[in-house]
Amino acid sequence: MIIVRRVIIYHSSTHQLHAPVHEFFEGALIPYQESPTRANIVLTALREAGGHEIRLPTDHGWEPIRAIHDSAYLDWFKSAYPAWLAAGGSTSGAVADTFAVRQLKRRPNHPKAALGYYALDATTVITDGTFQAAYDSAQVAICAAEALSQGSRSAFALCRPPGHHAHADLCGGYCFLNNAAIAAQWLIDHSTAEPSGPVRAVILDVDFHHGNGTQDIFYRRSDVLFVSIHADPDRQYPYFSGGAAEVGEGEGVGATINIPLPARINDHAYLTILDQACDRISDYRPNWLVVSLGVDTFEGDPLGDFALTNEAYTLIGRSLAELNLSTLFVMEGGYAIAQLGQNITSVLGGFESFKAT
Amino acid sequence: MIIVRRVIIYHSSTHQLHAPVHEFFEGALIPYQESPTRANIVLTALREAGGHEIRLPTDHGWEPIRAIHDSAYLDWFKSAYPAWLAAGGSTSGAVADTFAVRQLKRRPNHPKAALGYYALDATTVITDGTFQAAYDSAQVAICAAEALSQGSRSAFALCRPPGHHAHADLCGGYCFLNNAAIAAQWLIDHSTAEPSGPVRAVILDVDFHHGNGTQDIFYRRSDVLFVSIHADPDRQYPYFSGGAAEVGEGEGVGATINIPLPARINDHAYLTILDQACDRISDYRPNWLVVSLGVDTFEGDPLGDFALTNEAYTLIGRSLAELNLSTLFVMEGGYAIAQLGQNITSVLGGFESFKAT
Repeated sequence: MIIVRRVIIYHSSTHQLHAPVHEFFEGALIPYQESPTRANIVLTALREAGGHEIRLPTDHGWEPIRAIHDSAYLDWFKSAYPAWLAAGGSTSGAVADTFAVRQLKRRPNHPKAALGYYALDATTVITDGTFQAAYDSAQVAICAAEALSQGSRSAFALCRPPGHHAHADLCGGYCFLNNAAIAAQWLIDHSTAEPSGPVRAVILDVDFHHGNGTQDIFYRRSDVLFVSIHADPDRQYPYFSGGAAEVGEGEGVGATINIPLPARINDHAYLTILDQACDRISDYRPNWLVVSLGVDTFEGDPLGDFALTNEAYTLIGRSLAELNLSTLFVMEGGYAIAQLGQNITSVLGGFESFKAT
Repeated sequence: MIIVRRVIIYHSSTHQLHAPVHEFFEGALIPYQESPTRANIVLTALREAGGHEIRLPTDHGWEPIRAIHDSAYLDWFKSAYPAWLAAGGSTSGAVADTFAVRQLKRRPNHPKAALGYYALDATTVITDGTFQAAYDSAQVAICAAEALSQGSRSAFALCRPPGHHAHADLCGGYCFLNNAAIAAQWLIDHSTAEPSGPVRAVILDVDFHHGNGTQDIFYRRSDVLFVSIHADPDRQYPYFSGGAAEVGEGEGVGATINIPLPARINDHAYLTILDQACDRISDYRPNWLVVSLGVDTFEGDPLGDFALTNEAYTLIGRSLAELNLSTLFVMEGGYAIAQLGQNITSVLGGFESFKAT
């Protein structure tokens, strides 16, 4: 008899409090792509797949979030929407239109301008429920990390809003709090010290877009290896980082690995590159693996230009299982709504099926 | 008999080539505020006022523009719209939605992202005719400067698009090329050397908004005194600069004077402050005075919150005339369309009437 070891699922229904209507994209207002439907569909697919334990998060407070994010940024985020309303802003949500680019360094006092100091684009629309949704999304990641630290071999944090574009003090790309970074730091902080040296974590980012926020957070550290496989930023968001020449700074040199890829990459080419990345991860001998799991690499994704089929996701899950590490999946992007649930369950299914053999 | 010495007017009809339909403002798309109607109305009012010599510009080429702007920025600006179209962008115009904020320094290669490297907000929509309009707007300023250097005591450059928010390598606030800075530099470069020391120019910026671009361009120089009277940036665009504590750097310490003002300031209070600024200008003993002339300080301006009446503009013109300097007016903002022509002709009328007595 095969005992399938199922990945534990964490989610929160409060993500639905974050539901902006529009985003500004290439000169036009378009429907907000990072919609509540995304997480709802994934949860439904996981329920239908069956066999998973599905848990709600408990509140672990601010400390694990403050371990990653700048205090002034968090204070701003908490008060951004009420301050925007008080300044006459619309209930459709607070969003930046003027930005602290390059030589502009002065932190502005006006609530409408603070948005452009703490955001790198116009996707991070802050509505009435955004702060609660983002806080709970981080708690989902923290609880999943706790499950691992208590002995579970794997967990999936169905985070929404996503996190990997958020820097310590910048939101962007639909992300406000960096769930994967918070979870990785939690794991490091709650591990028993190893006689062989410091506790080490890997964050493997397989979202279509470069994880600029995660990279920046750990760029000068050697205890977190950041490996990102993504669309070349010369072609795709987030544009300003993600090149192969970015390898870390100071203590962190060598602990950032960027693998930018061309458009239309297929299953075979992608999986070959993923396996090479997995070799680098094994060599690092981490205690923990956190996977920033975006499936906007799918051939039908409206925000992507890769050509992965659904079959690739089962194989991605299998490759990750072969690493034989305590593994935390954190939900990032994926916008092909009709196939989103299936693509996520395929990753977890591939991961679980390997564990069972 | 009183001989009224009229201000010579320079303008170009090609400003009409720059006519974006919308801009992104506080989460919504609104009609583009910096419309062709603005300059057309001012020209009509000047014609109706009568007595002015109205001239078209001749082409002085790139050199005077390159004396202020970064070459890579100019190259980008020239190719921005065709590159945007080639990348699949809409003919409604190229505009940034993702920005090179703070720690993001990498110059992106993608044409849609380059916009967010070279712009600080979403107002600088680049359409098919924008580059020609901005180039000709700079030529209007240069020709007006040339008239001064050839002996005219005063000239008005009816520039559109405006310029004072443009840095050496950043567009923003409807501005692409800094017409006032280009004109001031032209005057310095084309003046006969003075036995008493270097040639010096003052740029007095009376637009409602802080002239962030002009400030940044001359921030480390002592031969251009920049004096700006504007809405406190804690309350109004451009938010990231314009505080009284910004006084210049290095050689330029003391040659930047910012006078941020509260909302609802009235004629009397404003004129008192202007006269104090004029004393500082006299003390500097400049060879040339360039006035960045915005009339969005008007009580009815949709972008402003000051309370100046039309009468103030006559008195502003008179105060400037009392400085008894060779004076170049460069058109900046002003969005109360119905009164825009009258407010501008009042400044010039006040200036001319003093000259005549």
